[in-house]
Amino acid sequence: MNRIITIGRQFGSGGRELGRRLSDELGFAYYDREIVEEIAKRTELSETYVQNIIEHRPFVAFPIHIGQSFLASADPVQQQNQEIFQTQCSILNEMSEKSDCVIVGRCADYILSEKRPLRIFVYADMDSRIKRCREKQPENEDLTDREMKNRILDMDRQRSSYYEFYTGNKWSDPENYDILVNTSNLEIKAMAKMIAAAIKQ
Amino acid sequence: MNRIITIGRQFGSGGRELGRRLSDELGFAYYDREIVEEIAKRTELSETYVQNIIEHRPFVAFPIHIGQSFLASADPVQQQNQEIFQTQCSILNEMSEKSDCVIVGRCADYILSEKRPLRIFVYADMDSRIKRCREKQPENEDLTDREMKNRILDMDRQRSSYYEFYTGNKWSDPENYDILVNTSNLEIKAMAKMIAAAIKQ
Repeated sequence: MNRIITIGRQFGSGGRELGRRLSDELGFAYYDREIVEEIAKRTELSETYVQNIIEHRPFVAFPIHIGQSFLASADPVQQQNQEIFQTQCSILNEMSEKSDCVIVGRCADYILSEKRPLRIFVYADMDSRIKRCREKQPENEDLTDREMKNRILDMDRQRSSYYEFYTGNKWSDPENYDILVNTSNLEIKAMAKMIAAAIKQ
Repeated sequence: MNRIITIGRQFGSGGRELGRRLSDELGFAYYDREIVEEIAKRTELSETYVQNIIEHRPFVAFPIHIGQSFLASADPVQQQNQEIFQTQCSILNEMSEKSDCVIVGRCADYILSEKRPLRIFVYADMDSRIKRCREKQPENEDLTDREMKNRILDMDRQRSSYYEFYTGNKWSDPENYDILVNTSNLEIKAMAKMIAAAIKQ
């Protein structure tokens, strides 16, 4: 069976960079935005639209107390969300069958749970995350620390809602992961080498 | 500077075994019960008494709302708790200056924070922890799963209160650690080898 590493990550924690470096160190395939591209191709929706759906809180049209459930809903937006998620499940399964791989986000830890992936969650303290986001922000963007913090927390909330909506599990609960790594005090490059060495054991 | 690894752990998660194996793999000194023995020697209190104090919730004689603080208290029990904790701090500092080491529990991650230890937290799901505790229980003990679970949760609460009382930080908060490892699905022996390989990088 192929080896699968899934990476969940707080916004601004460097999880994507860690995943990319880890795949380089191990010679594993790397999947991140490729998943969005493939969903867009199969569903004939635009990449921007798909990205929007899978990075944001699912839109629940009917409150639970009137007895509507997501799956039973005839609402077209709901149906499209569901179609996108099902396509995502198929794609992740296909990708994981091709070769050893690193998959960032997309509830891959849950979707591929039967294949026993190594489930990594990447996090950091707020100061490090603000610093990392500043290094990547466009030149014309001038957010205060407070605005940047709010953006980070908002992105976390979106990831958390998305994860909890589709998996029924709490996004930040350590029980859903095998290893959690804090990138506040260690360089991502060194950390990727450390994790790769551990996996090669 | 010596390399220091501190291990916090949920009760029944195998943190002690992981620490011991890790120290063997790396050739680091290992400190766990040795700390209690040394505190007992220096304070001239019995090991059982010291163990009881440092494994249990600190006894707070005065409620905070009447303006008493732990440090200012003239209560002899409080003073003894404080003396034990200060002795513990001195011992941990001395131990960490002798050689590379692995230290299990005792708020070592906090006490030695200026020496930048690698702070590991070990956890597992409840089923694994019950199973591990059963393997180690005395032959004449016959607890139900419910009773075992309650004992585990009670030990966690004691560790958590002790840690939070002396450090002001939340025991289970990932921000207080560099790596969190889940022992539910991986053998401790293999995990120790993996972490040792990562540290040797």
